[in-house]
Amino acid sequence: MGNRKGRRSGLIFKIKLLRIEAGGKPIAIMDDDDAKALGIHPLERVDIYRGDVHALAIVNIAKRFPRGFIGVYDEVLKDLDFREGESVDVRLSEDPISTTFIKEKIYGQHLNKNQIESIIYDVANHHLSDIELAAFVTALQINGTSLDEVEAISRAMVTSGKTLDIGRKPILDKHSIGGVPGDKTTLLVVPIIAAANYVIPKTSSRAITSPAGTADRVEVLCPVNLSQEEILETIRRTNACMVWGGSLDLAPVDDLLIQVEHPLSIDPLLLPSIMSKKKAVGAEYLVIDIPTGRNAKIKTMNEAESLARDFIDLGKRLDIKVECAVTSGEQPIGHAVGPALEAKEALETLMGEGPTDLLEKAGHLAGILLEMVGVKRGKEEAARLVKTGAAERKLREIIKSQGGNPVIKPGDIKIGDKTYVLESSKRGVVLGINTSIIAQIAKAAGAPRDKGAGVLVEAKLGYRLDVNSPLLRIFSESSQKLEHAINLAKTVNPIQVSERIEEEILLNRIPALVPKREEFPLER
Amino acid sequence: MGNRKGRRSGLIFKIKLLRIEAGGKPIAIMDDDDAKALGIHPLERVDIYRGDVHALAIVNIAKRFPRGFIGVYDEVLKDLDFREGESVDVRLSEDPISTTFIKEKIYGQHLNKNQIESIIYDVANHHLSDIELAAFVTALQINGTSLDEVEAISRAMVTSGKTLDIGRKPILDKHSIGGVPGDKTTLLVVPIIAAANYVIPKTSSRAITSPAGTADRVEVLCPVNLSQEEILETIRRTNACMVWGGSLDLAPVDDLLIQVEHPLSIDPLLLPSIMSKKKAVGAEYLVIDIPTGRNAKIKTMNEAESLARDFIDLGKRLDIKVECAVTSGEQPIGHAVGPALEAKEALETLMGEGPTDLLEKAGHLAGILLEMVGVKRGKEEAARLVKTGAAERKLREIIKSQGGNPVIKPGDIKIGDKTYVLESSKRGVVLGINTSIIAQIAKAAGAPRDKGAGVLVEAKLGYRLDVNSPLLRIFSESSQKLEHAINLAKTVNPIQVSERIEEEILLNRIPALVPKREEFPLER
Repeated sequence: MGNRKGRRSGLIFKIKLLRIEAGGKPIAIMDDDDAKALGIHPLERVDIYRGDVHALAIVNIAKRFPRGFIGVYDEVLKDLDFREGESVDVRLSEDPISTTFIKEKIYGQHLNKNQIESIIYDVANHHLSDIELAAFVTALQINGTSLDEVEAISRAMVTSGKTLDIGRKPILDKHSIGGVPGDKTTLLVVPIIAAANYVIPKTSSRAITSPAGTADRVEVLCPVNLSQEEILETIRRTNACMVWGGSLDLAPVDDLLIQVEHPLSIDPLLLPSIMSKKKAVGAEYLVIDIPTGRNAKIKTMNEAESLARDFIDLGKRLDIKVECAVTSGEQPIGHAVGPALEAKEALETLMGEGPTDLLEKAGHLAGILLEMVGVKRGKEEAARLVKTGAAERKLREIIKSQGGNPVIKPGDIKIGDKTYVLESSKRGVVLGINTSIIAQIAKAAGAPRDKGAGVLVEAKLGYRLDVNSPLLRIFSESSQKLEHAINLAKTVNPIQVSERIEEEILLNRIPALVPKREEFPLER
Repeated sequence: MGNRKGRRSGLIFKIKLLRIEAGGKPIAIMDDDDAKALGIHPLERVDIYRGDVHALAIVNIAKRFPRGFIGVYDEVLKDLDFREGESVDVRLSEDPISTTFIKEKIYGQHLNKNQIESIIYDVANHHLSDIELAAFVTALQINGTSLDEVEAISRAMVTSGKTLDIGRKPILDKHSIGGVPGDKTTLLVVPIIAAANYVIPKTSSRAITSPAGTADRVEVLCPVNLSQEEILETIRRTNACMVWGGSLDLAPVDDLLIQVEHPLSIDPLLLPSIMSKKKAVGAEYLVIDIPTGRNAKIKTMNEAESLARDFIDLGKRLDIKVECAVTSGEQPIGHAVGPALEAKEALETLMGEGPTDLLEKAGHLAGILLEMVGVKRGKEEAARLVKTGAAERKLREIIKSQGGNPVIKPGDIKIGDKTYVLESSKRGVVLGINTSIIAQIAKAAGAPRDKGAGVLVEAKLGYRLDVNSPLLRIFSESSQKLEHAINLAKTVNPIQVSERIEEEILLNRIPALVPKREEFPLER
């Protein structure tokens, strides 16, 4: 690192290597009394000098740490390779200038491009403490962000990470803001677009709070943790990829900020988070799916339209043509919820044996993308590519190129063998499905970690049921988890069945055992 | 601890005692992959079960921690005395309900009494992470607090800590919101009030960002770190005490929140922080000093009056009669800045040999207090108590009762022997004193840690100077620190001297080596 001027004279310490990683942050530990002698408070920064060069560390203060020693986590060694027992000069560091800009945001000021770049740079380099990061995202949440700020954040996030240079044009992409379980639409849209001979380099996340992320679903069919070279090769061969974005180091700042946003259940960086990752893969045409429903992330059409406008405006600033699709988030897409169940359903659907709503949704989204690049009657063209088997063949090409079994049959996909069927206790019509409870049940059964765990929603909106008609079919890899899922399903009534609407006054019972935080899907 | 219901089934770990204290927080460390298996993110909470009882811990995630072990800091052992290698069941904990209320505050809602009590309870019990605490104080800062909220916070802070039951009435108290260096007024006001036979149990803080807090000043004369019994005995004997509040555990929540507010340089809890501590000692009559000046914490009369009204309104809610004094914060009070120099100046002043402004200020504040309890012409009575030597005798009684030398002479007080005199480079009148630079110079010289370090401001506003007239006299216990202080003083020109006001266009030069944060005095 550089040769930054400490604001005070330092004290001599001996290095104690703690030999653990802090998960990114350059943490150093010192005794309370030593900290007082340096005039340092918890989570302030110090520069640890060997001669003229130094490493930055964020100080944790311990009550009974050996006096005269500074304990360092492995992250500190990335800047300077300290040795056990080495004498170093520890000085209270000047605060990064970005802390001043965070304070300005707290006081309601708009930040300019340079100020935002300074903050994002210091986030990327782990120079800010959790307290400063939490204050920053809280201030963004409360005071809001201007379009100028959102653009600057997006661009700085791109600059902070790697980019994918595909070398072909145009580049198409698809994103869902999430919030509805069972949404495996990406597994259909990507092969359809690639079959139409357009490039679509799809990077996805794993589940954070949901029972399955797209990366979890695809991983049932083939590896998703590919190197940049493997990804470029897959795209060269097939026009597409469906990979986990995490290993690509696209906009890594976003992942650091999510670690602070998640415990607070706030999401002020939704737009730059999504758009920076699209920009980093060079996307020029982007369709964004905004599922909308009472239990989805976006509850009303007004909210959905306002968010859509924001995406479109930000896209213009970033030279990405954006169209948004507001889709129904009132019930799961298809029947399957859980990685393996969903991968199976997606494969079946491309093979002509899937649920209509999934096929319809994929056709709509793929159709929008195709029309954006000039194809006439995009949805019909998408349907044709499914019907002729071109999309299925393309999916198998992608599976093969990513290292999976290209001739996999739906029956080959391993589903949890511990099962239970929740039945209706009365006759009637399905009037409501609580999607967040469905997600909870799938998670209680083991999803997303246990890939074969999940639920099949057998009774969808408008279905007419008899007493003992199946509502849900739960799958688990463990008897204990199945038990948990059954208990939850029996307690909370995820599916409302009634002859007459008037019978159903109680729309949603929220029992104590459903944790509130989980209802907030911070999936991007 | 209780028998709270975990929201998921747990995993079995072995305890690894880390044998360090985290400084209050119950931190546990586990390996990244173990955390994933539990579905836990950094800074989430776990319950660590031995049989049916459990301890709560906040999880830090390490990249290379022994698999299957959970490392615990000493704080975790306060709930349950775990043994090295003991098998425990670790479960993801439900979030405390207070996290929901913090989120509501982020969304701009007002919190009711129960919600605030819940938050303060969880702060007091270290159940909240730094991220949650930072979000809470940031939201309070941005969204503001209603009088109802401030009252509830104050009362909950009192409940969270101990109280002092003096058993006599009325109880008087004095507080300064700080922000002007050299303000040793408390060392005069307390003896004056006690000499008038009123009870004044004064608890003070040490310096946080300033060169001396009242506790630092008093400590030059006698111990300030007294037990509750010793304090009550001192009050019984002398009507008064002047002690460090920290060991009394009055409103300890405030100290926990300051640890988060300080790095952010925000102070949304100023009112409840001060008033809860006054309530905890049973204060019924309180004078609050609000120093106001361009470099003080409060810059304008408008700000000062608005803050005064808030104190008075909150006082009414808490059954404390409050009067505020808006005083000049344009220059140091008296000449001395630094613990020993200030203690000496205070003693000299009570002995009849001190600066007029200090005596005046003490007389005003003591006079207001005396009039509040019905004494006529309070300021004159205060002056009389100084003139007759009653206040000095009372100060010596307090010193004696707290364990100091009651016959101490000003000359006995040890001042740093490394000195330097900064001289005026021109003739003229002192037109401005940058108090925050004065404070910086005193700190560079070693204050408050080196008690004998500090500065004497020889040239105050309106003084007529010649070339080479002394401006500042710097005292230090170390040649190196003296050098730092001299460099700073020479670089920044703390005292503006001019024949004509027009010569002084530049009011304040802020050099890079004066850290911005230090200018914000988060002293209470």
